This record gives sequence, C-alpha cells and structure tokens, in this order.
Amino acid sequence: MKTTTPFDSIVARLQTAQRVLLVTHAFPDGDALGSQLGLGFILEGLGKEVHLYAEAKANYLYEFLPGIDKLSQNLPPPSAFDCVVALDCGDRERLGKAMAALLTYKPLMVIDHHKGHENFGDVEWVLDDRSSTGDMVYDLAIALGAEISQPAAYCLYTAIVTDTGSFKYSSTTAETFRVAAALVAKGVKPAEVAGKVFDNFTVSRLHLLQLVLATLELHGQARIAVIHVTREMLQQTGACPGDTESFINYPRALASVKVAVFIKEAEDGMVGVSLRSKGSDCDVAEVAATFGGGGHRNAAGFKIREVAVAEIRGKVLALLLPLVSEPVAGSKS
Amino acid sequence: MKTTTPFDSIVARLQTAQRVLLVTHAFPDGDALGSQLGLGFILEGLGKEVHLYAEAKANYLYEFLPGIDKLSQNLPPPSAFDCVVALDCGDRERLGKAMAALLTYKPLMVIDHHKGHENFGDVEWVLDDRSSTGDMVYDLAIALGAEISQPAAYCLYTAIVTDTGSFKYSSTTAETFRVAAALVAKGVKPAEVAGKVFDNFTVSRLHLLQLVLATLELHGQARIAVIHVTREMLQQTGACPGDTESFINYPRALASVKVAVFIKEAEDGMVGVSLRSKGSDCDVAEVAATFGGGGHRNAAGFKIREVAVAEIRGKVLALLLPLVSEPVAGSKS
Repeated sequence: MKTTTPFDSIVARLQTAQRVLLVTHAFPDGDALGSQLGLGFILEGLGKEVHLYAEAKANYLYEFLPGIDKLSQNLPPPSAFDCVVALDCGDRERLGKAMAALLTYKPLMVIDHHKGHENFGDVEWVLDDRSSTGDMVYDLAIALGAEISQPAAYCLYTAIVTDTGSFKYSSTTAETFRVAAALVAKGVKPAEVAGKVFDNFTVSRLHLLQLVLATLELHGQARIAVIHVTREMLQQTGACPGDTESFINYPRALASVKVAVFIKEAEDGMVGVSLRSKGSDCDVAEVAATFGGGGHRNAAGFKIREVAVAEIRGKVLALLLPLVSEPVAGSKS
Repeated sequence: MKTTTPFDSIVARLQTAQRVLLVTHAFPDGDALGSQLGLGFILEGLGKEVHLYAEAKANYLYEFLPGIDKLSQNLPPPSAFDCVVALDCGDRERLGKAMAALLTYKPLMVIDHHKGHENFGDVEWVLDDRSSTGDMVYDLAIALGAEISQPAAYCLYTAIVTDTGSFKYSSTTAETFRVAAALVAKGVKPAEVAGKVFDNFTVSRLHLLQLVLATLELHGQARIAVIHVTREMLQQTGACPGDTESFINYPRALASVKVAVFIKEAEDGMVGVSLRSKGSDCDVAEVAATFGGGGHRNAAGFKIREVAVAEIRGKVLALLLPLVSEPVAGSKS
C-alpha cells in the first residue's frame, strides 16, 4: 500500500484546482520571489488562474525577475480560490501582515526547506536538506507534468542561486546541481542571472558597504566577526535597508571566521540580526531560536524590538562564544 | 565508418600507456592544478605510473588540493614516459621554462578549453565551449572507464569552481552543472571547496578593501568608476599588494558602470593600472596599449614609472570618456 505523502497531496490538489493563490514570506528574498513567480508561471502554463500576493513592493534588486509586475498587494477573499500555497515560510509569522487572514484560507498548503520549520498549514511539504524552495518547486513541476518555460526556469534558477550564494553554501548538493542543469537546459543563462544578482550595486550601496565594513569587530580569537548598519549610515549614503542584502558575506569570507553576525537597525523600530556559520560546528538556527527567530544550521536570523546595537551584540556573543571556543584538535580548519 | 577523433586517440593512448607525464601551464591556477592532479588520481586508479611536473611550488592558495605534494620540479627524460598530457595550455609558451624540452616528448597530447587556442601538440583535444579543463577531464575519465575517487572528484570540482567563479561566468552551461552533480555525488562538499577557494580573506585584506572602496570616484555619468590603493593604505592595514586581487570587481559590480579602473601604487616605484569593461562597447586592451600595456577587450592593464595617482587617472579618463559618452538609446543599462 502506498502512503499518500504531503507532496502527493499538493500535486493532487494543484492538478484539480482552477484558481490558486500563491504567497511567500514578508520581505521576500530571491528564493521567496523566485519560487513564488516560478510556480506562478508553471501553474499558468497548466491553464490555471494564479494570484500572486505580496504585502509590499519587492526589493528593487529583484525587479529583473520575469513576472515581478504580477505581484499584487490586493488579497481577494478565500472564496476566490480553490487552494493556497505558502512558499518558503519557516513559520506562520513569516506570512507577514496578512497572516491572520491567510490562515483562514483552505486548504493552506506549505512548501518550505527551512530547518526548524514550524507547521502552520493544512498540508506541509518540508525538506530541510534541499537548497531552496525553488529547488523543490522544480520537483513539483515535474510531478505535475508541467512544461517548464524559460521564464519559469529563470525564476527557479534565481531562487537556487540566491539561496546558495551561487552554489557555495552547505545546502548545495548533487541534487542542487542536477536541478540547475535541468533549468539551464531550458534556456537560462547562468552568467546573466549572476550579473543581475551580484553585479547590481548602486553607488549609494557601495558607499554603504564601505561604512559597514568599517564597523567590523572580531571576537573569540577572530572566529566571530560582527558588522552592523545604523539608520544614520543609511541616511548618510542615501541607501535603502534592502541594500544591505549579502553584506554578511564579507565578514563570513574571513578565513578565520566560523560565525558572522550582521546587526541591522530597521526603519520600523526593530533591530534585525543575521547569522551565518561555516561547517557543522555551529548551528546558528539554534541561536536565532533563542531570540524567537529561525533559519538553517548555517544561515539564520531574528528581529527584536528596539535595542542598542551594543546590547544585542553582547547577548548574541554570549551565546556564540562557547560554540566556537573549543580547540579544534587534529584539524587545520 | 567512424572517424577517430582527438578525444578517441587520447583515450586509446592512455589505455595502453603505463608511464604518463602530466604537465600544465606556468603559474597554475585552480583549473590547471585541479585538472592535472585530478587526471593524476584517475590514471593512478587505473594502475598507471604518473609523474606530475611543475616548474615551481604552487601558490599557497591551492595547498588544500589533495595530491598537491605529488607535484615535482624534477623532469625525467622522454624515455621515462609512454606519453605526455599537457593540460589547460592555450599555447606552447604557457608550458613555461621547460617548453623546449617538453615539445620533444612524444606523443604530446593536449587537453584545453581556451578560446583562440594555438595547437602545439601531436594530438589536440580542444573544446572552447567547456567551462574548464577539469570539466573535460571528467569526460576522459568516463571514457577510460575509470572509477572517480573522492580526491579526483575534489580536484576536478575545484577546477570547475575556480574557472567559472563559482558558476557565474558565461562559460557555465547545463553540461557544467551535470558534471558538477556527478563530481559532488562522489563525495565532494561544495561548501568546503567554496570555503577554501573564496573565503580566504585575512582581516588586513578586509580593512584594505574598506579603504580602497572609500576612494571610489565616478565619471562620465557614472559609467566609469575609479578606485585606487596607495602604499600608505598597505602599510596602515598590514596588507600585501597581492591582497588587492579581485578588488576591481567591486566598482565593476556597479550597475551603471561600463568601465572600472583600479590604480595601484606598487612597491617597485611603479604604478599599475587595471581596466575592466562590460559588454562589447569598450575595448580596454586598446586603452592599455596606449600606455604600453595589453590584455583582452574586457580585461587589460599596464604599468608605468612613478607618477601621481591623480595624473594617471586624468590621462586614462581622457581616453575612456569618449568611449562611454554615446547615448545608450533604447536601453536601460
């Protein structure tokens, strides 16, 4: 007897559904937008009506994504849809401002790859060993027998590239490369996507990078690197909060560093903290969870109410220092 | 009737050969070393005697490669080998100091992927649409029926990663990803290789980057970006001149920029100027040639005797400004 898996349920439901609502997490990154837009193209290709909801306009860095103008800040009532798919949301809070409303839409089907994912949907397909949600949507497209168009492939490929830092993070596996090969075979040009994702700096952003790099602090025998951005730096350079995307890769690129921390003063009176670790020694998702956040072993984050940068830095360091302080016996790394 | 291709010839010769000499180009990069060491492991796995010749000790950045200690600066006479394979050499000059000697070794079989490759071997297998020579060695291993061990896969994967900038350059194709998938399936950890290849910044180098970014100047409606490094900055940060490697990619990453210029005060009383352009509008090799330098359309440079940064910047800008001043009709870039 074959058991019906969450994956099977989602495939079956999408096969019969005619009107589908696709949502992703608030402040969407490349995987969130790429998987949402990519699945949108795939379902439209199967003749379905698709509504792509977003609580706000996407970060300008992702304006190059095909279909980005289809995102709508309008959320029709539950009766307008046969089902909802929430993509790349590690927990219900990530649904953002419309969370309470969205939880009433049935069935709410969840596709996610985050470690420590907390179920909130009616059907939950969660694979925390996959590189990205875009990577999983590829499997879904195959199961649906969909033709993956070039724009769909472009969105899914961008999702993978952004969530793996161009195939550099530990979530990158042989399967990731197999999916990338299949998407590129659909006409995606890797160099073009890399140019859009990585060579997209404004002058303000480069100035901001310079100010942020100047905040570098090293702790724990240079195994922990901390940078921060203040509202004042944003004002001074004319940059926007979205411009700090990927800045954490600079302290992370230090040879000695095991964990990189990026503390960000946000517009809304909150402070965001991003954490990146290398290898398997340090699980930053656990650290983030202490502050009510989440993520993966090597990439996690959280937001807290107004607090001084120095204060939250001290609290995070208190948790991180014991994790990196052990002597690394018999290893050069 | 099936024609015998250069590939077939190399496969046939390696199948019968017992003693094989493997060489690559002088000042070897990741693809040169990765393909040389990788093919070494593959042939050893087939029970052959392999000699890996190198004219000098490899750059410390590649010390992590398995088998790097097998490289030998000793070159036994031709009689010691049944055949020679020259990997990743675009022309005979790239063979380095031992060129004249190596050209007498028979048969000299060449495996390369460089555009504009100039033949110099007895058998020439050249595919300029492949991402790297490492990528091609994978095909060879399959044709030889070799078991690809983890160390062999690690070397070939590193070759691909370094020569594509982690799958970002235009040489990256679906085939590149298929080979990467196969190599990773042999036990290579992409994050580990990326860490060794890219996350190798010292703190001094990151401080230097911050100082250099602060020198950014824009000209020609932000189509030209200029940065510079002074001897004083190197002293202040404790960085070495080699640490500025790849810094020009930051101004180049500005969306508006067509040409990036990096002016470097060198230790020897010289000033070095690196030029990078995007697309086909601006041939920086011509600009470099004006100052006695050289290079390619999109990457060139020159060195001149002691001169003030401001003076050489003015001279270079005078040549570049007319090249970027045309209105870019009907284009957003």
